[in-house]
Amino acid sequence: MTDAASPLAASPLAIVILAAGKGTRMKSELHKVLHPIAGRPMLEHLLASAAELAPERQVVVAGHGREQLEAVLAGRATIAVQEPQHGTGHAVLQAEAALAGFEGDVLILYGDVPFVRAQTMRAMLDRLHGWHNPPVVVLGFEPEDSLNYGRIVADADKILEMVEHKDATAEQRAVKLCNSGLMAVRSRDLFALLRRLRNDNAQGEYYLTDIVNIATDDGHHCAVIVTDDPDEVAGINSRGELAEAEARWQARRRRQAMADGASLVAPETVWFAWDTRVGRDVTIEPNVVFGPGVEVADNVTIRAFCHIEGASLASGVEVGPYARLRPGAVLKERSKVGNFVEMKKAVLGPGAKANHLSYLGDAEVGAGANIGAGTITCNYDGYFKHKTVIGERAFIGSNSALIAPVRIGADAIVAAGSAVSRDVADGELRLVRAEQLVKPGWADRFHDAMKKKKAEKAR
Amino acid sequence: MTDAASPLAASPLAIVILAAGKGTRMKSELHKVLHPIAGRPMLEHLLASAAELAPERQVVVAGHGREQLEAVLAGRATIAVQEPQHGTGHAVLQAEAALAGFEGDVLILYGDVPFVRAQTMRAMLDRLHGWHNPPVVVLGFEPEDSLNYGRIVADADKILEMVEHKDATAEQRAVKLCNSGLMAVRSRDLFALLRRLRNDNAQGEYYLTDIVNIATDDGHHCAVIVTDDPDEVAGINSRGELAEAEARWQARRRRQAMADGASLVAPETVWFAWDTRVGRDVTIEPNVVFGPGVEVADNVTIRAFCHIEGASLASGVEVGPYARLRPGAVLKERSKVGNFVEMKKAVLGPGAKANHLSYLGDAEVGAGANIGAGTITCNYDGYFKHKTVIGERAFIGSNSALIAPVRIGADAIVAAGSAVSRDVADGELRLVRAEQLVKPGWADRFHDAMKKKKAEKAR
Amino acid sequence: MTDAASPLAASPLAIVILAAGKGTRMKSELHKVLHPIAGRPMLEHLLASAAELAPERQVVVAGHGREQLEAVLAGRATIAVQEPQHGTGHAVLQAEAALAGFEGDVLILYGDVPFVRAQTMRAMLDRLHGWHNPPVVVLGFEPEDSLNYGRIVADADKILEMVEHKDATAEQRAVKLCNSGLMAVRSRDLFALLRRLRNDNAQGEYYLTDIVNIATDDGHHCAVIVTDDPDEVAGINSRGELAEAEARWQARRRRQAMADGASLVAPETVWFAWDTRVGRDVTIEPNVVFGPGVEVADNVTIRAFCHIEGASLASGVEVGPYARLRPGAVLKERSKVGNFVEMKKAVLGPGAKANHLSYLGDAEVGAGANIGAGTITCNYDGYFKHKTVIGERAFIGSNSALIAPVRIGADAIVAAGSAVSRDVADGELRLVRAEQLVKPGWADRFHDAMKKKKAEKAR
Repeated sequence: MTDAASPLAASPLAIVILAAGKGTRMKSELHKVLHPIAGRPMLEHLLASAAELAPERQVVVAGHGREQLEAVLAGRATIAVQEPQHGTGHAVLQAEAALAGFEGDVLILYGDVPFVRAQTMRAMLDRLHGWHNPPVVVLGFEPEDSLNYGRIVADADKILEMVEHKDATAEQRAVKLCNSGLMAVRSRDLFALLRRLRNDNAQGEYYLTDIVNIATDDGHHCAVIVTDDPDEVAGINSRGELAEAEARWQARRRRQAMADGASLVAPETVWFAWDTRVGRDVTIEPNVVFGPGVEVADNVTIRAFCHIEGASLASGVEVGPYARLRPGAVLKERSKVGNFVEMKKAVLGPGAKANHLSYLGDAEVGAGANIGAGTITCNYDGYFKHKTVIGERAFIGSNSALIAPVRIGADAIVAAGSAVSRDVADGELRLVRAEQLVKPGWADRFHDAMKKKKAEKAR
Repeated sequence: MTDAASPLAASPLAIVILAAGKGTRMKSELHKVLHPIAGRPMLEHLLASAAELAPERQVVVAGHGREQLEAVLAGRATIAVQEPQHGTGHAVLQAEAALAGFEGDVLILYGDVPFVRAQTMRAMLDRLHGWHNPPVVVLGFEPEDSLNYGRIVADADKILEMVEHKDATAEQRAVKLCNSGLMAVRSRDLFALLRRLRNDNAQGEYYLTDIVNIATDDGHHCAVIVTDDPDEVAGINSRGELAEAEARWQARRRRQAMADGASLVAPETVWFAWDTRVGRDVTIEPNVVFGPGVEVADNVTIRAFCHIEGASLASGVEVGPYARLRPGAVLKERSKVGNFVEMKKAVLGPGAKANHLSYLGDAEVGAGANIGAGTITCNYDGYFKHKTVIGERAFIGSNSALIAPVRIGADAIVAAGSAVSRDVADGELRLVRAEQLVKPGWADRFHDAMKKKKAEKAR
Repeated sequence: MTDAASPLAASPLAIVILAAGKGTRMKSELHKVLHPIAGRPMLEHLLASAAELAPERQVVVAGHGREQLEAVLAGRATIAVQEPQHGTGHAVLQAEAALAGFEGDVLILYGDVPFVRAQTMRAMLDRLHGWHNPPVVVLGFEPEDSLNYGRIVADADKILEMVEHKDATAEQRAVKLCNSGLMAVRSRDLFALLRRLRNDNAQGEYYLTDIVNIATDDGHHCAVIVTDDPDEVAGINSRGELAEAEARWQARRRRQAMADGASLVAPETVWFAWDTRVGRDVTIEPNVVFGPGVEVADNVTIRAFCHIEGASLASGVEVGPYARLRPGAVLKERSKVGNFVEMKKAVLGPGAKANHLSYLGDAEVGAGANIGAGTITCNYDGYFKHKTVIGERAFIGSNSALIAPVRIGADAIVAAGSAVSRDVADGELRLVRAEQLVKPGWADRFHDAMKKKKAEKAR
């Protein structure tokens, strides 16, 4: 394939993304193209691939639920409204105003076909400027089962006819080349062709596909290029298909992580986010979930049942099992987070440890500090969040509550079971402990009384 | 298929469930038909399907371990004892006393074939009253691999011969139609036929199957109907087959949940119980286990690693990751339960939050209340359980122990680290805190002494 | 197959394991053969199988990273160094010094082919002493896809030619019998043949395979035996293949556990270690990870999301969900460990319970004791570990910190929220509780002030 810098690809590019469908089968209030895969809305996956081609303009054709699209796009693309909806050809026509004054190539994509690779888009555009200068280039695919896809009847790469499955003859249905719906068209041809569409069909709709037949009837060579990966044009129309797309994405990502030098004991139980970065000689035990924004350096061990979002794990770190790292968790070299520990906006210094049943929020823990089991940073007073700062090599005894804002000095010790609300100086011991009241024999008398009561109740 | 209200299906019905097998391959003290699938004994799955046909009588033929069956059935079916066990025909014959005086249709089912659909049972009964009035209707199936199943040699739906695999000729083994063992028989024919069975075979047993051959030899038209889902007649004879049946059940249920509007990021890692109810626009992250008795409303988010039994989640609720909801957990609108939190017989009011490391048992939490990290309701004194009531908008500071019975007022505040054993009034602050003893330099001296001791030990 | 006691197998045996490859595709600092499967380095799996044949000598041929091998082997095998590396034939030749004076059979294995069964090794050795006394016996296999494996052209079990895939004719490539690389050779023939190897090939290497062609050219009958399980000769060259080998191992182990009488609700989500022992009528819910050293008795229930290493679970025990049992956790009969509980070097007596959010380290808990939610044994002072001993039927109130070394007597009660640093006598109540300070109206005033402050900040 030609790379982005080739003279051919240098022609100005506009992207039109169709996203006006109702997505009824999703049964959702959320717009179909905003449903996430790998923690990222499918529309964003598509925009990211398209961005590799540096388009001059981007138009999203929206119908139902367009406010949701506006909120997400936040001006990154023009939204053209299709209302009412009279078919795919009619949809693309709504982009005309947004493309006023634009001259160049137009790539027509679908918001619910999010995993088309940039290299495939590029190949479509390259073909548009190649042999015979086709006015339209269609992306075809050869699925294992052709189902009721529209077929492309072609002679070499010249399209002879585009035919809907329901209108196809038995002979045409035997054709394996199917129409993905994706097209590249020169802007000067696109709208002229669209205006010649007719809706004298069963649905009373204007089909984008028909522009190929019109151009072909005009004697033009419309070209088809065929993807080598039918999965990239898989449309997502239901939650079942969403889950399948997620599964394919994850499988690819897991293979990549292993090829890059991470050991996944049970790869099928590790879920990456779209932007997870994982180093070399990283071991990941079964059942680990990554949310967005995670960076894992080399030589890190992530034990089973971890849930990690927006966190950074430096070299030599060991976490889990059951570590829950939330956004802003920063684990420096060789630090350790153990079971049932939650971290949020908290930095654990080099070699520091929080091994058991703790909550560290809005905290800074110095190098080599030891956070005892059951330690809680009380960072919230019901209105504001406050910060806890723990010095290097400090030792926080088990079951302590550190009531922020509070600062524990270097080498300081907080005795087990303390609720600390005032700063502790370097090297100081803070001991918050009430008198231990002893009631000899009390428990024995209590047991006797209760057993009696229990027996009475049982009667 | 005919629906339940059809005149044909209105004939009185008796169900006979064979459950006398030893289940040796299960290697279990638990009766084979009581092993659970989706949190419910397989026998109960079968009874639930049969119940859709409103049978007048239900007989379970039991042998080994029948006390366990009696305990579970608790009078819902008559138990007929087969002791000793001389084959399936002999087993059905034991139901005769329980069916004394009954006239109508008898459906013969198997306790270890629990997933036969009601519509299939109905189709068998309908056929019993259809064309040729067959005395026996057999349920056939066409498995992918016929293995050593008995074969049904038929001409259209007329059975010519039932033949055991081991007695079958090569030609008969080529027949793909296999015998599920399930039968519908008119009561007036059943016992007459059973009494004509002989046990002059290798095992010395009376085979139920032979009643078909006897009736056929008499010149009757015994009919076979064929299920379109061979999985529904899969028998469960080992823990491996139990796991396979569970997997099939779960796969079906997951597809249904997605079709109904729930997003399952990794459907293969969500386990439903037989009665789980899930709404629309529900998101379920990887690794969620549902026990029986769970209701999830619309717009609920269940994050990874949750374990939920007997709980009710209202609209807008968010739970997990690592939330453990036990029976009696009621989460009202927009309430939130976070990581490492356990709830049991506890109500969380609208918008209330328990985000971290807490145990809420036998508790009522008012709307908008905030339960700090590490809060424990001390609901058990070793003999009795007591209740904790927390008012609206109350703020429970981190690491607090609420010693029940206790009542915290509306808008009240419990300071972090408090053990509260007396009621707190509305708008009151309860501060249970001992003096903070400060020992400047103590920690430094301690460190020095310990390092010395450690060095000595290392020598 | 002949058993170990057969006279044939009684010939002295030496094992040569090739482990000099760089393992570049693993992208790891860890030696390839030390990557673990089921919690055990692959080399150890291979050594364990070989040990069943009681070899007199064991030689590991190492190159890159041999210090790591030395550390692991710790004298259990002689390490021969291959440096530089000139092919597999050259590698085996390096074992000559280590085998000086040895007379008998030599079995050539590969450190990255760890799952060859002892019975297969034995069959190779038996064949070496069988019909025609072949100087070399090669282990062949018939993979589903022959890929670019070397082929074995044979007439019955007599090898006619060993041919590399790249040198094979189309006809030879059609041969399905592939070369695993494993060989049995008599010591008196091995080194003589190796010295006749030539490196006049594209790679300039000495191929072990060529000794077969040399012997065959000499007129000898070199024999091939074919494994019935192609998976046992699967080589592991990447983390992807490592994960596949792990998956195959786990699948086999899960089937075995079910056949032995354990119910695995979702077998694909239970990970065993190489030495896990599981009893009968054990139920394992989804998502359970076993590390090495675990013994599970009969009638144990392990709920979802448990992580268990080095622990012993007696009959009637119930753990989880979310129980984390670390080495030295001993759960006696009918004891119970619930959610978010960690145990390490701790014994839970018969019928004792630790149901919620606790850490038990270096502890002994007596029979029938009840450990309340949020209990922490403070076993570490930053330098040394100390022990907690809890008596029979003792009741530890919720949110208590037991500051070790400490002893709680039988039938004693520790009140909720106590930090206990001194021993508690039998039947005594220990109540560590400060005054409950009440500030009526304080919370209301605080709320007013904070709301005002929040409103100001929002401006």
